[in-house]
Amino acid sequence: MQTEVPAGMKGPTAIGVDVGASHVLAVLVDSDGEVLRVASGPAPSASAADTAAAIGALVRELIPDEVVGVGVGVAGQVDFQTGSVCISPNIGWRDVPLRRLIEREVGLPVILDNDAHAAALGEVRWGAGAGHDPVLVVTWGTGIGGGLVAGGRIYRGRWGGGLEIGHIMVMPRGPRCGCGNRGCLEALAGGRSIEAEYERRAGRRASVREIAALARQGQREARAVLRRAARFLGRALGGLVNLFQPEMIILVGGIAGAADLVLDVVREGLRTQALPGVNREIVTVVGELGEMAGPLGAACLALERWGGAS
Amino acid sequence: MQTEVPAGMKGPTAIGVDVGASHVLAVLVDSDGEVLRVASGPAPSASAADTAAAIGALVRELIPDEVVGVGVGVAGQVDFQTGSVCISPNIGWRDVPLRRLIEREVGLPVILDNDAHAAALGEVRWGAGAGHDPVLVVTWGTGIGGGLVAGGRIYRGRWGGGLEIGHIMVMPRGPRCGCGNRGCLEALAGGRSIEAEYERRAGRRASVREIAALARQGQREARAVLRRAARFLGRALGGLVNLFQPEMIILVGGIAGAADLVLDVVREGLRTQALPGVNREIVTVVGELGEMAGPLGAACLALERWGGAS
Repeated sequence: MQTEVPAGMKGPTAIGVDVGASHVLAVLVDSDGEVLRVASGPAPSASAADTAAAIGALVRELIPDEVVGVGVGVAGQVDFQTGSVCISPNIGWRDVPLRRLIEREVGLPVILDNDAHAAALGEVRWGAGAGHDPVLVVTWGTGIGGGLVAGGRIYRGRWGGGLEIGHIMVMPRGPRCGCGNRGCLEALAGGRSIEAEYERRAGRRASVREIAALARQGQREARAVLRRAARFLGRALGGLVNLFQPEMIILVGGIAGAADLVLDVVREGLRTQALPGVNREIVTVVGELGEMAGPLGAACLALERWGGAS
Repeated sequence: MQTEVPAGMKGPTAIGVDVGASHVLAVLVDSDGEVLRVASGPAPSASAADTAAAIGALVRELIPDEVVGVGVGVAGQVDFQTGSVCISPNIGWRDVPLRRLIEREVGLPVILDNDAHAAALGEVRWGAGAGHDPVLVVTWGTGIGGGLVAGGRIYRGRWGGGLEIGHIMVMPRGPRCGCGNRGCLEALAGGRSIEAEYERRAGRRASVREIAALARQGQREARAVLRRAARFLGRALGGLVNLFQPEMIILVGGIAGAADLVLDVVREGLRTQALPGVNREIVTVVGELGEMAGPLGAACLALERWGGAS
């Protein structure tokens, strides 16, 4: 699929790619964050080489005259220096040299980052977080992750991976998490836990999207399970506020699309846990860019490295 | 009390002050971290003006020919920009303009920071963390706090306060914390919780220091309560590793003095919670500077601002 957006191109452009568990989304943007073109393709497979080839095809669809490079955000733990995916449970990869594979396909310089980092940068540069600092962006979907933009830059630890917010323990001996531990935040507030809890209460399976739609129609069980997840998320975010003292928290990702239904619960949990001194003026909002946050942020990474953008 | 350390003074010097709940410790250091003089005094009182006067007296004891400024680390949430203590439950202050009060007393420029930030900078510049980045320093005492040094600088959120590690929820409906919430890490692994758990098991009260000494002698209850606290701390640190991906974690503070007894338990909890990709080479150690980490780090803050030190 390719969509052309007529727009006056300004300065250098870059391509941003978001590699999720279910599909790949690519955009061409200029240095004002103007989306010039969009291309998307089917889910990546367990073969990283096939995925790289699919990304190459999307990039070739998007290329105009001047593209400085390609930024790629991928759902998994990324070694930012080497450009490898260390582990991606949701895609099923381990130690994949994805940057090199994509570079070979697209013939352009590639920068590889965690998808939550990319989404964070997208929302801070061109979305809900513009003008705020520091900003904590939380991806709330099947997994729970995040990125911190402080001093205008993404916080990267020793190896450059994302903020694995989902894997803080919030309940000793709690439910089993996909990572193998018990009681992680993701096991109590992630998409799969919401679906499991809904099945337990309503006696039938539904996807998170369906549950959100039912909650919007006022269905009791659907509202209850979303509110339960939001309580855990809010308390955990309050703990993160005690660590990061952000000026703003932005929720993005699949479940964040339904966050307006439970934002009061998230905020209440956050207020409960955050210490009074640090919880003075923190604004918690839903992102503005939707699923474009990831690819826009990824393009931003490429523009910042090769395009001379600030 | 004043101790003179004979040493060849090099370059600019600064004074670092650590304002704890029980006493004030001040040092004069040169830009190599050489401690030239030490002065200490009794506990600060609820009167911030009296405390500022006491600090003034210590500083006047220490002043040689060339002191560029005074760094002060205080146990509480600090607004780094305004130089105020927003709230310090352990000292009993709220909204105290401490920097201004001290400046008036000492006649030198003053920089005010959270005590854990100061200790973190001390250990990273001149202690166990030298040459590593990022480094997470955890203060394990009555309270549990911390500081993150990344890219050579202390991470400061919007208002500059410390990493309030103790106030992450680790057990829903857990024991009551000093902050008013239930189930904070501090309520399960802080000094007071260790003392309370010891009383429950051994049937008599003892201070954390006594409990540590008893554990060292092999007393069963003392070892058990320290190991229990270490398990909670370790799991929480594993969660922080998933956020911060530090190259090194340094334990400092009153209980860290007994950490050699339970460091294996802390490391085991950390390994359990940390995701495989981010837990590759993280070293967890006890600080090298003991109670000098705070004042040395505070002096470092002053040297970096006014002394031209890197």
